[in-house]
Amino acid sequence: MSYNKKNTGAPPGTIVYSGEERTERVKLSLIEYNETEFFEKEFYDLSECMAHIKPGMVQWINVDGIHNVELIEAVGKLFKIHPLTLEDIVNIDQRPKFEDYDNYVVSIMKMIYYDTELHAEQLSVVLMQGVVVSFQEVDGGDAFDLIRNRIRQGKGRIRKMGADYLAYALHDAVVDCYFNILEKIGDRIELLEDELMTEPTKETMQQLHHLKREMIFVRKAVWPMRELINNMERSETELIKPSTDIYLRDVHDHTIRVIDSVETFRDLLSGMMDIYLSSVSNRMNEVMKVLTIITTIFVPVTFIAGVYGMNFDYMPELHSKWGYPLTWLVMLTMMISLLFSFRKKKWL
Amino acid sequence: MSYNKKNTGAPPGTIVYSGEERTERVKLSLIEYNETEFFEKEFYDLSECMAHIKPGMVQWINVDGIHNVELIEAVGKLFKIHPLTLEDIVNIDQRPKFEDYDNYVVSIMKMIYYDTELHAEQLSVVLMQGVVVSFQEVDGGDAFDLIRNRIRQGKGRIRKMGADYLAYALHDAVVDCYFNILEKIGDRIELLEDELMTEPTKETMQQLHHLKREMIFVRKAVWPMRELINNMERSETELIKPSTDIYLRDVHDHTIRVIDSVETFRDLLSGMMDIYLSSVSNRMNEVMKVLTIITTIFVPVTFIAGVYGMNFDYMPELHSKWGYPLTWLVMLTMMISLLFSFRKKKWL
Amino acid sequence: MSYNKKNTGAPPGTIVYSGEERTERVKLSLIEYNETEFFEKEFYDLSECMAHIKPGMVQWINVDGIHNVELIEAVGKLFKIHPLTLEDIVNIDQRPKFEDYDNYVVSIMKMIYYDTELHAEQLSVVLMQGVVVSFQEVDGGDAFDLIRNRIRQGKGRIRKMGADYLAYALHDAVVDCYFNILEKIGDRIELLEDELMTEPTKETMQQLHHLKREMIFVRKAVWPMRELINNMERSETELIKPSTDIYLRDVHDHTIRVIDSVETFRDLLSGMMDIYLSSVSNRMNEVMKVLTIITTIFVPVTFIAGVYGMNFDYMPELHSKWGYPLTWLVMLTMMISLLFSFRKKKWL
Amino acid sequence: MSYNKKNTGAPPGTIVYSGEERTERVKLSLIEYNETEFFEKEFYDLSECMAHIKPGMVQWINVDGIHNVELIEAVGKLFKIHPLTLEDIVNIDQRPKFEDYDNYVVSIMKMIYYDTELHAEQLSVVLMQGVVVSFQEVDGGDAFDLIRNRIRQGKGRIRKMGADYLAYALHDAVVDCYFNILEKIGDRIELLEDELMTEPTKETMQQLHHLKREMIFVRKAVWPMRELINNMERSETELIKPSTDIYLRDVHDHTIRVIDSVETFRDLLSGMMDIYLSSVSNRMNEVMKVLTIITTIFVPVTFIAGVYGMNFDYMPELHSKWGYPLTWLVMLTMMISLLFSFRKKKWL
Amino acid sequence: MSYNKKNTGAPPGTIVYSGEERTERVKLSLIEYNETEFFEKEFYDLSECMAHIKPGMVQWINVDGIHNVELIEAVGKLFKIHPLTLEDIVNIDQRPKFEDYDNYVVSIMKMIYYDTELHAEQLSVVLMQGVVVSFQEVDGGDAFDLIRNRIRQGKGRIRKMGADYLAYALHDAVVDCYFNILEKIGDRIELLEDELMTEPTKETMQQLHHLKREMIFVRKAVWPMRELINNMERSETELIKPSTDIYLRDVHDHTIRVIDSVETFRDLLSGMMDIYLSSVSNRMNEVMKVLTIITTIFVPVTFIAGVYGMNFDYMPELHSKWGYPLTWLVMLTMMISLLFSFRKKKWL
Repeated sequence: MSYNKKNTGAPPGTIVYSGEERTERVKLSLIEYNETEFFEKEFYDLSECMAHIKPGMVQWINVDGIHNVELIEAVGKLFKIHPLTLEDIVNIDQRPKFEDYDNYVVSIMKMIYYDTELHAEQLSVVLMQGVVVSFQEVDGGDAFDLIRNRIRQGKGRIRKMGADYLAYALHDAVVDCYFNILEKIGDRIELLEDELMTEPTKETMQQLHHLKREMIFVRKAVWPMRELINNMERSETELIKPSTDIYLRDVHDHTIRVIDSVETFRDLLSGMMDIYLSSVSNRMNEVMKVLTIITTIFVPVTFIAGVYGMNFDYMPELHSKWGYPLTWLVMLTMMISLLFSFRKKKWL
Repeated sequence: MSYNKKNTGAPPGTIVYSGEERTERVKLSLIEYNETEFFEKEFYDLSECMAHIKPGMVQWINVDGIHNVELIEAVGKLFKIHPLTLEDIVNIDQRPKFEDYDNYVVSIMKMIYYDTELHAEQLSVVLMQGVVVSFQEVDGGDAFDLIRNRIRQGKGRIRKMGADYLAYALHDAVVDCYFNILEKIGDRIELLEDELMTEPTKETMQQLHHLKREMIFVRKAVWPMRELINNMERSETELIKPSTDIYLRDVHDHTIRVIDSVETFRDLLSGMMDIYLSSVSNRMNEVMKVLTIITTIFVPVTFIAGVYGMNFDYMPELHSKWGYPLTWLVMLTMMISLLFSFRKKKWL
Repeated sequence: MSYNKKNTGAPPGTIVYSGEERTERVKLSLIEYNETEFFEKEFYDLSECMAHIKPGMVQWINVDGIHNVELIEAVGKLFKIHPLTLEDIVNIDQRPKFEDYDNYVVSIMKMIYYDTELHAEQLSVVLMQGVVVSFQEVDGGDAFDLIRNRIRQGKGRIRKMGADYLAYALHDAVVDCYFNILEKIGDRIELLEDELMTEPTKETMQQLHHLKREMIFVRKAVWPMRELINNMERSETELIKPSTDIYLRDVHDHTIRVIDSVETFRDLLSGMMDIYLSSVSNRMNEVMKVLTIITTIFVPVTFIAGVYGMNFDYMPELHSKWGYPLTWLVMLTMMISLLFSFRKKKWL
Repeated sequence: MSYNKKNTGAPPGTIVYSGEERTERVKLSLIEYNETEFFEKEFYDLSECMAHIKPGMVQWINVDGIHNVELIEAVGKLFKIHPLTLEDIVNIDQRPKFEDYDNYVVSIMKMIYYDTELHAEQLSVVLMQGVVVSFQEVDGGDAFDLIRNRIRQGKGRIRKMGADYLAYALHDAVVDCYFNILEKIGDRIELLEDELMTEPTKETMQQLHHLKREMIFVRKAVWPMRELINNMERSETELIKPSTDIYLRDVHDHTIRVIDSVETFRDLLSGMMDIYLSSVSNRMNEVMKVLTIITTIFVPVTFIAGVYGMNFDYMPELHSKWGYPLTWLVMLTMMISLLFSFRKKKWL
Repeated sequence: MSYNKKNTGAPPGTIVYSGEERTERVKLSLIEYNETEFFEKEFYDLSECMAHIKPGMVQWINVDGIHNVELIEAVGKLFKIHPLTLEDIVNIDQRPKFEDYDNYVVSIMKMIYYDTELHAEQLSVVLMQGVVVSFQEVDGGDAFDLIRNRIRQGKGRIRKMGADYLAYALHDAVVDCYFNILEKIGDRIELLEDELMTEPTKETMQQLHHLKREMIFVRKAVWPMRELINNMERSETELIKPSTDIYLRDVHDHTIRVIDSVETFRDLLSGMMDIYLSSVSNRMNEVMKVLTIITTIFVPVTFIAGVYGMNFDYMPELHSKWGYPLTWLVMLTMMISLLFSFRKKKWL
């Protein structure tokens, strides 16, 4: 979970990849379809890929890796994508946003997944007339596989609809991945809550803090999605047909649900912080009570024992036959009456 | 009180029931009425049910259970309900919302009830020309029984009004159930407050936390209702007649009152958290005072007793006749003056 | 200070009194006036009351008690007041609001007064052409007596103005009662603040909490007033003449001032909570210091005394002549140097 | 720093001075000027003052004291000021606001100054065609002296501009006085911050609370200024010429800066509260450590000394030659190893 | 990090430098360019500088130092800059803002940099037809050097674009400097977080507070940037060409990202405060446990030793042969069973 970086100082439109260094070759996977036909192939070369394009079909080109800047520039040139858009696509710390250009619209989003910890992968979707170009940071994309399968098998209405529906489906897949993450986090919150109620330790506190940070991380990816979808819905572009509006409204609702859950989790987590602190106080109280009870019971009687341990020549009690048993009686009476007073105060 | 789940990955419009598994047969109860006539019957088959429908009357079909997806799809087909709407109806983690389609409007709401703990049941109301179809998760619905009775007995104006008034009445029943829940929670808050003032324990804290979580749960169901009713009021649909507007305004007011109460309860609960913490601190203080008083009174005199318990050959005091009584005098003076100083500090 | 209740389940427009049971007869007091004439009488019967009404005068009918539902219904019928309005008037947990009907406008407000604790009385003002009907829960109303006196004595401009000015005056009286309550609360806050600074006890904390709850109570009555007055100002009704607008603007300003004070008090109270907690911590610190100082001074020297109380046969120090005084010297040196180190640490 | 009061119950437009009782005669100071001429005189009588007024010049009448209600009424009558405006002018607890009447606009503001503590003085500025009448609670006004001097000396553009520019200058002077107050408060916050970091005492806490209350006080005066200036800018009155707009925009900016500082100070103060509490906890921790170290080192060895102080007949160790030195060895070893374990835990 | 100051009391438009006293001569650096030509020179005299200006080129005049008020006035006169603008330029505590005058637009911004601590330098950019005049407080400006180099080398599109693009580039450089600062602060937050988790000390707390204050400082500079850029985008000035709009949108996005990061850091810092407090409580708990364990184990057995140290004549146990070993047995049993009970409570 790192924080914002940016290639500061460079002129705008400078296309510099800002993520970790990668060496894999960048793969282009082309899927072409219409209601009756379907074609799918992977390439490592743009011109080869373009040679397979047939008019009248929906083309989906997925670029698996954005570290090959030359390729990105070539794609940009081919499809007339503005350099500022390309800069945003390769700068992995971009804030999610939707932008409307003359010949295309672009959404830059964050896919979130668990590895050992939370990671965000930047995903950009460029929608043009009949063509969708998507850019992924790494070749992962289970979420997209589901869409690919739906296209391959002709399930649902995806094969009957245009490129705008495909773009919508990609957005929907991103929001779905948020649901998955939130479900996992929700489970961990519930576990932690039980732990807090029974046996909170220092690790509980650190896990709580870790979850809080993760929520901050998720929130940063999720909140801008609402605006993104909103702008998409309100956009006056002709690339998105009115028949797709109803689906955008649906993904909009899902985004709001995700945000609701994020806020609910934040509420829960800050409530758990309170419980932790009060439980620490409670345990301190318990420790203090033990200390106080022991001290209060034994210190006075130890004083009495001390008194009759003194070596004065003239201490008449010492020579009385009943001195010793009476002293024990006094000491036991003190101890027992103190125990009773503690029980009365409900300390025992 | 579980958190959001969603059938992620499936194509949009896939109708998958997301609640607990159920095996009961789904019951359809039909109520038909106009100002003079009334008909009521229960069915387990849609076509049988449809056979009883008479034109010119208001039809209310209540579907008791949404786990029979085929039935829901059949209902959807019959009344031309969009697959996305059907998906929302059977997905029990849907966020409350109002949507306006060409031939119908739909409200998805949450009914809240106490079992052993708080539960939310999803309730969907589809209003069409002269027909209301409502979908309930389980066959419960005391709230709806009241409306049924009003229709049966011709009480109030419900028999004189159209399907839109019936739809309003169902919304009103949902908001009424929030009032019931909040009254119960309010009573529990008052009890807890008394407990906090007199004798707070660890359980008080846990109950407090439990109530807080319940408020988060209620809030999640209640807040979107305001928007729902708002959208319903502002909707340009012709299905809701202007004469019903005044009733929607009324249910809108009730929703705001519910939200006000929820916020008030949240305020009260967080104030109670403060009291709890300060009461824990106070008790700790009390414990510390007892410890300090006992220690301060007995430790110095125990030291004196220790001194005269030493075995030096040359300790002149030990051989003086007044040694022992004088030592007692000194010790008692010390103890009493310490007690006075504590009284002065108001520790006693 | 109770929380929201509502006659849930009843059909809308069902007029059910929701307050405490009352048996007093409901009094109708009629005041009629114009610039030159004045008439005032009390009735227990609506038709008797109506017989005294003269055209061309402003009529003010005050209904003292809303537990006689039949009377309220009769009034409603006579003046053509919508059943939903009547339901709101008799439901004492109504949220303050302004509503604009065709033939009348209605404001439902909360009057707050101190008894042994804070109480809210619901007050409804219905403004019609030339007539104001006001509904009070109990026969109290010092605030209204001031207006009655102004009418009787022809003081101010009230006799020269119409029914809308009278309605405004009633609203102004309600806001004035908030000022009175807030002044009293302000005085109590100042007292409590002094107490907190000098000698905070557990009772201070409970008073603080009580004040906080009272502020929540007041806030709930006061906040909706802003919206109420706002809606009244913006209302397009012809019942309120433009010449009265300037007075509404004035009462609007007063409402904002009241809300400002409420928020200021809330700020002050939460600041006081912090002081209380820090003062509890400070006192704990003080107690701990006393304990630590006493323990630290006496425990080491008690150890030394213990050593020379041992009964070993061969303890050369015991037989030295200087053993005893030297031991005292060592013990005193230890005690004094510890005292100095405490002074250095500013613990003494 | 007192809270809101209001002459509740009186009819609106009743002009009642609500401040402390004052007996000084109210002074009227007239300044007349245009680009070439200048005239200045003080009066105790309104008609005398009015006799000096020359057409074609800008008149500024400053009323020094608002406790002479008759004079205020006379001024109001002369300049046709609405009774509600006059009521606001003499009610010293008025909320800052701008109002636009047909023949004049009026701003009611709060001047803040330090005496022994913070005080707010109400200041009202009525702008009419060619005339500015300002009302001050007390004869103080260094801030206004600066404007007077600028007029006298013809410095800046004030002599070349009209009455609206003069009104603007008065507003600017009020905002300037906020800057002065905030600078002083800022200095005190910095001092307090240093104190908190080095040696926080109970007084630091009380000063912190005092500053917080002062910020609440300042905030109450400053926040409404933004709205006031906003309303003034947007007002459609012809009394404010377009050429003055640019100056209003400037004073608007200053107001925002003042509000920014107020909010920054509030942030700082609540951060300081946290530091105070954590420093109290830290000191408690330190005290506890000293107690624990002393107790832990001496209590076990005191036990050993106690054992060999027992008087059993058969205690072989007592008669061994090495008993005493070995016991010392054991005791010292225990003490030293405990000291080492504390050092390891970084408690020493 | 100082707080707002202002030359209060002076007439508006009075040009008074409000920063630290400086004596360096103010340098004017002129850069002229178009797509083909480039000229750069530094001057200490305005008229000399103006002599080099060639029509048809973009002129960028950077004024390095705003303490020479005469020079600023001369520049203002030459370019017809309003005195209020000049006042804002030299008043270093100005709030960032954008203003639109007839013949020019002006942005006043804050450049933030680290020295030993955070400093803000005021930077003003005046955009006129073909001319950009920028004012810097000190001669620093690495950020601007990057732009200068781009112009010199003809890199990017800057040489092909007009003065509005240059102005945009300066704004972009300012936002870039925020990214640099936030990256540094982000690193420090991460370091501090690790420290908090492992070994929090009083210094950690002070660093935390320091970081919080720095965030308040940064926030004050950064938040108004959003409004500034917003106003710039929406401005109807003809000085900014539509082709530059896309770049402004880009810098707007960057500003939002900066604000997002600032808010994220604030969230993180307040979460860290909670951890600190809970870690202090935890350590206190640990100290208390040690104290309690030691006391509880040794105080009771010391009492027993005290009992058999008493000097009564008739104490039968003392004369039994098994008295001493049995006493040891009892004492060891007590100590061991206490140790076991602590282990059971998980205190050990």
